Amino acid sequence: MKHLLSTKDLSRDDAITLLDIAEDMADVSAREVRKLPTLRGKTVVNLFFEDSTRTRISFEAAAKRLSADVINFSAKGSSVSKGESLKDTAQTLAAIGADGVVIRHPASGAPQVLATSGWIDAGIINAGDGTHEHPTQALLDAFTIRRRLHKAASRGKGLDGVTVTIVGDVLHSRVARSNLWLLTTLGAEVTMVAPPTLFPMDMTGWPAAVSFDLDDAIDAGPDVIMMLRIQQERMNAAFFPNSREYSRRWGLDDERFARLAPTSIVMHPGPMNRGLEISSAAADSAASTVLEQVANGVSIRMAALYLLMSGDREES
Amino acid sequence: MKHLLSTKDLSRDDAITLLDIAEDMADVSAREVRKLPTLRGKTVVNLFFEDSTRTRISFEAAAKRLSADVINFSAKGSSVSKGESLKDTAQTLAAIGADGVVIRHPASGAPQVLATSGWIDAGIINAGDGTHEHPTQALLDAFTIRRRLHKAASRGKGLDGVTVTIVGDVLHSRVARSNLWLLTTLGAEVTMVAPPTLFPMDMTGWPAAVSFDLDDAIDAGPDVIMMLRIQQERMNAAFFPNSREYSRRWGLDDERFARLAPTSIVMHPGPMNRGLEISSAAADSAASTVLEQVANGVSIRMAALYLLMSGDREES
Amino acid sequence: MKHLLSTKDLSRDDAITLLDIAEDMADVSAREVRKLPTLRGKTVVNLFFEDSTRTRISFEAAAKRLSADVINFSAKGSSVSKGESLKDTAQTLAAIGADGVVIRHPASGAPQVLATSGWIDAGIINAGDGTHEHPTQALLDAFTIRRRLHKAASRGKGLDGVTVTIVGDVLHSRVARSNLWLLTTLGAEVTMVAPPTLFPMDMTGWPAAVSFDLDDAIDAGPDVIMMLRIQQERMNAAFFPNSREYSRRWGLDDERFARLAPTSIVMHPGPMNRGLEISSAAADSAASTVLEQVANGVSIRMAALYLLMSGDREES
Repeated sequence: MKHLLSTKDLSRDDAITLLDIAEDMADVSAREVRKLPTLRGKTVVNLFFEDSTRTRISFEAAAKRLSADVINFSAKGSSVSKGESLKDTAQTLAAIGADGVVIRHPASGAPQVLATSGWIDAGIINAGDGTHEHPTQALLDAFTIRRRLHKAASRGKGLDGVTVTIVGDVLHSRVARSNLWLLTTLGAEVTMVAPPTLFPMDMTGWPAAVSFDLDDAIDAGPDVIMMLRIQQERMNAAFFPNSREYSRRWGLDDERFARLAPTSIVMHPGPMNRGLEISSAAADSAASTVLEQVANGVSIRMAALYLLMSGDREES
Repeated sequence: MKHLLSTKDLSRDDAITLLDIAEDMADVSAREVRKLPTLRGKTVVNLFFEDSTRTRISFEAAAKRLSADVINFSAKGSSVSKGESLKDTAQTLAAIGADGVVIRHPASGAPQVLATSGWIDAGIINAGDGTHEHPTQALLDAFTIRRRLHKAASRGKGLDGVTVTIVGDVLHSRVARSNLWLLTTLGAEVTMVAPPTLFPMDMTGWPAAVSFDLDDAIDAGPDVIMMLRIQQERMNAAFFPNSREYSRRWGLDDERFARLAPTSIVMHPGPMNRGLEISSAAADSAASTVLEQVANGVSIRMAALYLLMSGDREES
Repeated sequence: MKHLLSTKDLSRDDAITLLDIAEDMADVSAREVRKLPTLRGKTVVNLFFEDSTRTRISFEAAAKRLSADVINFSAKGSSVSKGESLKDTAQTLAAIGADGVVIRHPASGAPQVLATSGWIDAGIINAGDGTHEHPTQALLDAFTIRRRLHKAASRGKGLDGVTVTIVGDVLHSRVARSNLWLLTTLGAEVTMVAPPTLFPMDMTGWPAAVSFDLDDAIDAGPDVIMMLRIQQERMNAAFFPNSREYSRRWGLDDERFARLAPTSIVMHPGPMNRGLEISSAAADSAASTVLEQVANGVSIRMAALYLLMSGDREES
């Protein structure tokens, strides 16, 4: 694997390889001394055109646990934040010797441009691009589901037959998109629930069932319910009336949470708006995987950095 | 020791243990290669909800000298800066595998909440919380006094009978509070000098003599005079008339400095407002420990990180 | 060598030593594991009073490749950004144990002050001070020219007889100044081309030919043409009418680029304003060394850090 740009283009075999390596990485992280020498002498650049402290520190922890050198490059507000200079920025990073670039960018497709332009030979990891994709988030979500289902025996397995309901602002969510493609590739069945204004106009080719009624979706008894984060700044805009109304109709409140099957799991990519899209009781319950998702995020990112940057890549 | 949250709760034995380990760390720092492998594979997160470059780089240097990985997390202005999400931030740091968290927060008590909430298992070090405490500052001050008094023979000793006069904005100063508790625990006698408007309304239980007259306090011949930093933004507010008036009545100017005993030492936590609370002659004199305090700060922070994060902690 | 403050004061021997060590560093950087243990246990502080992500990450990559610990200290906007506290900042960095300080400062001469004040014993590298100098930029430019001319056999050589034309805002450019001194010291012949308003009033002692006509300069057939970056904020000020006019008269457009000799090389310190001072065709041509300059920058900075901070320095 040379780059990790999207889950839409990820084969089932590659996805399972990533999840299996992440299992190994999780084992390493559980040890007293968690450092692997694998990427010693390699340089990872965190190239963030949007702020995202949580994602940045997850990649930073993953890279350092593999002994890579990490250089943080917050492009927001700097001269390089203008689109036209992505080429010069990429070539600069190549010239200083970046072996891997983790890019977050407000424009959908920017990581793809970086990977295919020839400007830079480094492995590119998409850490979120516009409303397009956020593949490591989907991978950590799949990893989390697989671990809950199969525990120690999860290696090599997909998510065949698992039912996953994704709830919230599907229109703007790259997390929803990346999960849709990956979960489907792994054999899961995905239902998406949102207000009509928060679905894309054209969902041709999306392998998902669609619902406008969260109560119906809950009564269908999904194995997994994944709540998306509401962007507060979209509240009171054209999309929906207000946060109280949103919470009442599309939030996982205590009453809805109580109706889930005891074996269902509750997911959220974080940071949560407690009391808005998810109640504190649901977020802090035994069914919730919110913190496992964060921990698994480091393992998944270690796996991705390892696959893209260790010696194997040179041979390909 | 599991956390370092305040000096008020620090026993004399624990305080002396910290000072003694800091002596060892100062020895390490004096060597050509100053790096210890002690915290290799451990991760320290600097979680700063307020800017403080000086304190942050001191902790960063200390952690790196112990071979820890350091992740800087400037929460100021980010979504996590809102109080309600401290829980989510803490759980996120736990999940990415933080072994130690150095927290600076504008709210008094935030580090205590982090340490006792169960949200995170890491060792917590208070790097300044509101007007409450700044324990590593007090420890480095005590370490500095002890070294000046006892030199190479300082191990195992307290500060019994040492007289310390603390001058300035006692009302808002966490440095003053932390020093008061620690110095008293170590056996020193503390006098506090400030304008009446810059003392707390209620000082019940404070083991300090109080004075409103700096000249009296200087004529009493203290072993140590510690000048607090004036926050310029409080000038011309209700607290005192203006900076010239402040300097004239409560500043360590050349004339007052000249009246100190030749063996007295002059301390300041930095950064100094030269010409306001302290004159340049006093700040740069042989009596001044300002730079020793900064150097000792790295040793004290190494000692605290070592005590909280090395193997011993797991056993407790 | 104890500090690297300017190229004006650099002897030919010292300059060639730096270039030769940079050759060794370039060899290291070409290896699979690029890390040298040379500066293990040493601390480099990047003290930036102005933003410059490109220069900062180049120094950061160089220091980490030598196994130094790097602490980034962005002083812009912080309390230390006021000139009067440079002393306190320097002493603080000394006290936390900085072995090397890379300083970028808006005031010409600030690095010199740091190096000669006695406030700090660390090796000081000027990473750009006002309109004064930017010595590592000039060194990487000279290194780039030397490598293009002599290839593998460049060690020990100067630039005798090489003709270099520097074009643009000479008045404000520290890059132009540093290059002028260094290139001349190494035996090159320098011509400077700019609008009359963008030359200094007094160029007494500048060992450069002066021209107001870029076409004449190009027809003279220089070995090297170096385009300076235009600071957009100076456009429409008193200096010249507007960017279109500037580009027409002093830009390296496609037509002028075509008239250069096939062996000429085109340089730019980056980031480029494509279409303003340089056309994309010129920037991306085989004649262009723009990316080599960035890559060579890491080698030169490794050489400078090595010379200033390795054991040899202590002996001097």
